[in-house]
Amino acid sequence: MLSKRLMEITGQKSDLLEMSRYAAQRAGEVGAENVFDFSVGNPSVDAPDSFRKSVQRLLDTKDSLSLHGYAHGNGILPAREAVAASLNRRFGTNFTFQNIFMAIGAAGGVQLCLRAVTDFGCGDEVIVFAPYFPEYALYAEGAGVKLVVVPPNTDTFQISEDAFERSITPKTRAVLINTPNNPSGVVYTPATLTRLAEILRRKQREYGRAIYLISDEPYREIVFGGRQAPFVTKFYENTLVCYSFSKSQSIPGERLGYIAVPSEAEDFKDLLPVMSNTCRLIGYESPATLFQWAIPDIIDDTSDLSVYEANKELLYRNMTAWGWRCVEPDGTFYLFPRSLEPDAAAFCRKAMKHDLILVPGDSFGCPGHFRLAFCVPTEKVKRALPHLHALAREYGLG
Amino acid sequence: MLSKRLMEITGQKSDLLEMSRYAAQRAGEVGAENVFDFSVGNPSVDAPDSFRKSVQRLLDTKDSLSLHGYAHGNGILPAREAVAASLNRRFGTNFTFQNIFMAIGAAGGVQLCLRAVTDFGCGDEVIVFAPYFPEYALYAEGAGVKLVVVPPNTDTFQISEDAFERSITPKTRAVLINTPNNPSGVVYTPATLTRLAEILRRKQREYGRAIYLISDEPYREIVFGGRQAPFVTKFYENTLVCYSFSKSQSIPGERLGYIAVPSEAEDFKDLLPVMSNTCRLIGYESPATLFQWAIPDIIDDTSDLSVYEANKELLYRNMTAWGWRCVEPDGTFYLFPRSLEPDAAAFCRKAMKHDLILVPGDSFGCPGHFRLAFCVPTEKVKRALPHLHALAREYGLG
Repeated sequence: MLSKRLMEITGQKSDLLEMSRYAAQRAGEVGAENVFDFSVGNPSVDAPDSFRKSVQRLLDTKDSLSLHGYAHGNGILPAREAVAASLNRRFGTNFTFQNIFMAIGAAGGVQLCLRAVTDFGCGDEVIVFAPYFPEYALYAEGAGVKLVVVPPNTDTFQISEDAFERSITPKTRAVLINTPNNPSGVVYTPATLTRLAEILRRKQREYGRAIYLISDEPYREIVFGGRQAPFVTKFYENTLVCYSFSKSQSIPGERLGYIAVPSEAEDFKDLLPVMSNTCRLIGYESPATLFQWAIPDIIDDTSDLSVYEANKELLYRNMTAWGWRCVEPDGTFYLFPRSLEPDAAAFCRKAMKHDLILVPGDSFGCPGHFRLAFCVPTEKVKRALPHLHALAREYGLG
Repeated sequence: MLSKRLMEITGQKSDLLEMSRYAAQRAGEVGAENVFDFSVGNPSVDAPDSFRKSVQRLLDTKDSLSLHGYAHGNGILPAREAVAASLNRRFGTNFTFQNIFMAIGAAGGVQLCLRAVTDFGCGDEVIVFAPYFPEYALYAEGAGVKLVVVPPNTDTFQISEDAFERSITPKTRAVLINTPNNPSGVVYTPATLTRLAEILRRKQREYGRAIYLISDEPYREIVFGGRQAPFVTKFYENTLVCYSFSKSQSIPGERLGYIAVPSEAEDFKDLLPVMSNTCRLIGYESPATLFQWAIPDIIDDTSDLSVYEANKELLYRNMTAWGWRCVEPDGTFYLFPRSLEPDAAAFCRKAMKHDLILVPGDSFGCPGHFRLAFCVPTEKVKRALPHLHALAREYGLG
């Protein structure tokens, strides 16, 4: 007697869930330290001290009613101002608080953006590029729109431009990108973003209506080699940037993020009011007010993200030396190598016998690959290397 | 080029918004202390000390990754256990953590429940009783279901039973109640809940399917005269109780609440998994993890809620003495008197000239009444009394 649609979704099997369950069971048998659970993308380094200090200072000094009161609508002003100023400093943008909408993480932000630019059940289409974060399929389901998947360019995990252009139709309302990318770790280059923008502008003219580019950026600060991910609004005016503090500050449970909307966006004057009303339709308000107040104190800080780069180096150097084929990640805490047999699920089952918990690429829209989430302590990565080596040898590599 | 549905909603005029805007403008002219803004239902007393102390202790002692990590799915175990134990102690229920689902306030909870028991755009119906919280219309819109409004029983603001029974159809999936009630302040009596349950059980048998009773209870702790609001699961098995700490603990901005699902509910084994997947479809997870960890410390505490009872006494005694007709509130921080002329909007405009900001009952589905939100300091209520008296005199009362 419950929602038919939700009962169906609830009945579906999830690779990720199955892997986590197996990992927990195996941990009971051999001890958690001997199971190399690379299945889940949870930060493994502490939140920066500035976060704790800021929250404590606020609790000590700020009056209860402002500190814990409703942050109706677009979010609290000092948080929005601090975000705008930080983006301007770092990326040369020209934002004010009016360009910033506080959201419940990047996921909450993407959901608001999707709903703001589409109508439920009207055949609207949203394009994603494989490999893509599997939850996007549920976001589209929840917004009542069709998810259109552009096949992967497995040589580089940049965008297949021709395939992208062919996938755009008069029903295309939005294109959802994720850079740095989960699961490939790749950052879209300025060249990729420039071509993407050119194609979108041409199609906008052809169809006579805006196509929004929703950029899901929870991994923006996790980029290796001291580089920086290009800021997408600089390439395309109808961009909605969804950011989260979850990964950069290791506070995923606190659901803190924002949407940046450039003034050049076609519907700029309506976008924030529409997003605010979207919140009312789906039942959440702004992120927790206490954490919004902390934003001016923490905006330019991050956790110690160098651990992820150290882990990447260890895994990428060793695995490719043993013969694995893998596009080198530019950032995130994921590696997305080719699986050592065509059926990635069968491969991941074999990996389990080496106590390695990996996720098949099929649910990311990219069969023949697997995801290894290396957000674990470096000593654990080191101890996992012989297991990965043994797995490679089982396939005649190494 | 944005969502048509959302552009329409964004374009609608809101009585509440208009009143708040006027109040802000008028405050600029005569000083905020001289404007009696009774339009908004925000707590006016501080959060209890236990909340601040608990959060500080957690920040000082608990490891960062657990404290701020994802609270996937149903919420963290100690929070769910603490809620279950507290409800059992207070209401003689028999809950375990398996009956408790952590939600983003009561609003977030109601949205999850609505979606869990209905399908978007399939003609499913949800019944509410006037006067009702106007946001319910948006909740229904967001879930793609039809809101069916049962006319008010203006003598008592209990339920009009015959009208209720007539409003139930084979499409009825849920009945949404709000007790203690915003805006009437009335608590549904055991007799009302017993009759409601009888009617629902009869209709369930007639139609051969479950009808869920969703009980929205953000005001549960604000009940006057040392009484207690009856606990709805004791009356009807297919009840989903949505609670929020927003009003009882004065932390509305922190979005902390839960859903209690009795084991006797027809779809008990599916309800929590379906709710958990509903979160994925609408883009929010559990409430902020830090606050969930605080729940065992704060569960049986409240803000100093006696202020609201003092305010109610002052307003109700004086206003009825001057001739206003009003059902006496059992709880909440609202008074919902008859307006002194049939057109409540015209009446509220006249009240503005006395610097009284009141909200017409029309948007609550109850014309000819107005809402006065008395969540303000008692000294402000005292200073407002002469203004209310003058307004009454303008209509030949007092």
